[in-house]
Amino acid sequence: MLHIGFDIGGTNMKAGIINADMQILAQQSRPYPPGGDHEQIVALMAELVYDLAKELNVPIDQFKTLGVAIAGSIDSTGGQILHAYNLGLHHMPMKALIQQKFPQMPVYLANDADAAALGELYAGAFRGCKTAVLLTLGTGLGGGLILNGRIFKGGKGNGLELGHMILQHDGPICTCGNRGCAEVLCTATWLITQGRRSVIDLPLGLIYQKAQGSPDAVTAKLVVDCAKEGDQIALDIFYRYVDALSSMIASCIAFLDPEAVALGGGVSLAGDFLFTPLRRKVEEKSFLKVPHQVVPAELGYHAGMIGAALLHRND
Amino acid sequence: MLHIGFDIGGTNMKAGIINADMQILAQQSRPYPPGGDHEQIVALMAELVYDLAKELNVPIDQFKTLGVAIAGSIDSTGGQILHAYNLGLHHMPMKALIQQKFPQMPVYLANDADAAALGELYAGAFRGCKTAVLLTLGTGLGGGLILNGRIFKGGKGNGLELGHMILQHDGPICTCGNRGCAEVLCTATWLITQGRRSVIDLPLGLIYQKAQGSPDAVTAKLVVDCAKEGDQIALDIFYRYVDALSSMIASCIAFLDPEAVALGGGVSLAGDFLFTPLRRKVEEKSFLKVPHQVVPAELGYHAGMIGAALLHRND
Repeated sequence: MLHIGFDIGGTNMKAGIINADMQILAQQSRPYPPGGDHEQIVALMAELVYDLAKELNVPIDQFKTLGVAIAGSIDSTGGQILHAYNLGLHHMPMKALIQQKFPQMPVYLANDADAAALGELYAGAFRGCKTAVLLTLGTGLGGGLILNGRIFKGGKGNGLELGHMILQHDGPICTCGNRGCAEVLCTATWLITQGRRSVIDLPLGLIYQKAQGSPDAVTAKLVVDCAKEGDQIALDIFYRYVDALSSMIASCIAFLDPEAVALGGGVSLAGDFLFTPLRRKVEEKSFLKVPHQVVPAELGYHAGMIGAALLHRND
Repeated sequence: MLHIGFDIGGTNMKAGIINADMQILAQQSRPYPPGGDHEQIVALMAELVYDLAKELNVPIDQFKTLGVAIAGSIDSTGGQILHAYNLGLHHMPMKALIQQKFPQMPVYLANDADAAALGELYAGAFRGCKTAVLLTLGTGLGGGLILNGRIFKGGKGNGLELGHMILQHDGPICTCGNRGCAEVLCTATWLITQGRRSVIDLPLGLIYQKAQGSPDAVTAKLVVDCAKEGDQIALDIFYRYVDALSSMIASCIAFLDPEAVALGGGVSLAGDFLFTPLRRKVEEKSFLKVPHQVVPAELGYHAGMIGAALLHRND
């Protein structure tokens, strides 16, 4: 049993084939076509399906389902992309369009964060869980929720906005116009902003040296690396970050008492240097003094694609 | 079909009989016996059952189920009270003890906030909902969650601690030791504290007058009443309260996209004076610009008892 998973983002369209053991047998990637032309996108997807069949040397009918994870919102029927702003897609009936190309193949559509959470459920950090929260720490803060062993798309089907939970009621302004959203305080963006500010305000220390005095050269990884080397300015930034992130996780735990909280995205690659102090802070801040699983997401770069190929299991 | 519901709190044990239309046909109350003796409590409960049967002039076997809502944590089997601190009860096998008295009657046990949410689901503000959040604003901030049309007791069965979601990451200390919990900022306790402080720090204005200069005379209702009369100090306190509460509700909406958020407890009795600015702030702070239902809980004082009598429906 082979399944196709697509992960469509603003830069690339990835497609992969997974087998019943959830191993990736083949994968290919194409640049996302500019302009957001529906027909062109679907033609490119079909091309990827044929190329993957050729690569594996199997007929198309060996692919039992086709799932698509997309950085956007999906309508409640699961057939239409409502808005995928970074992809320039609005009200695209993607399921029907793919179905025209492959009439025999069941097609599934999901938000990419939801698909990633499903991937973790069957093939990653959430195996065996019924209730779990995935937080993806990148430029923004996204995430997905597993409830009762299934993707939870929100009570009204509008999807979740975990990044816009409020962590600091009177805190700094978020891009959404609100104050103190988790997205302001818990993202790579925050680390970069603080690192850059330190280069400007405190022209000393390791961040300044490594960035050669240029704020633009500061990345989240650079800040974390400097903290790992014991630089006091970087450590101060990093621990403030850990503090905010631990509040976010403690809030999720207070709300749902999940079996696991997994962190994905670039920042989560900091490993034990992040997870050890983070877990201590989460324990400190959790009302329920029971063990909490705070773990790295396991599927990384492939989470959306694997989740997409598994969407038939969520049906 | 008649059902018995008990609501056991630190002051009183309430019991009522509801019919299939969820109307209360009879109710009685007894002071909660000091000391927390298991046998004594169950004997008193049995007495209430017989007295209610007598009041309604029906035989005991007309009571089809018996549900108990209790201010405490319940084990995952639903048979045992783990801890009910205000009642001095720990590891009490309440279900088995009641079953000994009424062997034919199915017995159900739930946390009182969970029962209240169930009551609202079948007989109150959550009718027709699948996903809904109840926030009870009293001395503390409790609450219950309906997911997929059932009580959600937490992913690990530990129950929810909505009052310990973090709203102000670096905010004032909570009784739990953490900072900026919703319980610090969104409760009647906060209104009282701020009102008392104003009496001490600002010996002028309506709160000071009505409290006759005595901080101990300040209640949450007094602060709200002064705000309603247009007193500037009281309005300032009240709008800071509305601001914090709107952040809490916006966070719940960002997390679960619920069909309804209902507010219970004393503060919610402030009516439109609370709900009108609160809804405006919630809309402002919600990432998803779709209509959100923020409504008063409907069952008030009887929510726990009615919910307890309906626990068989959640089974």
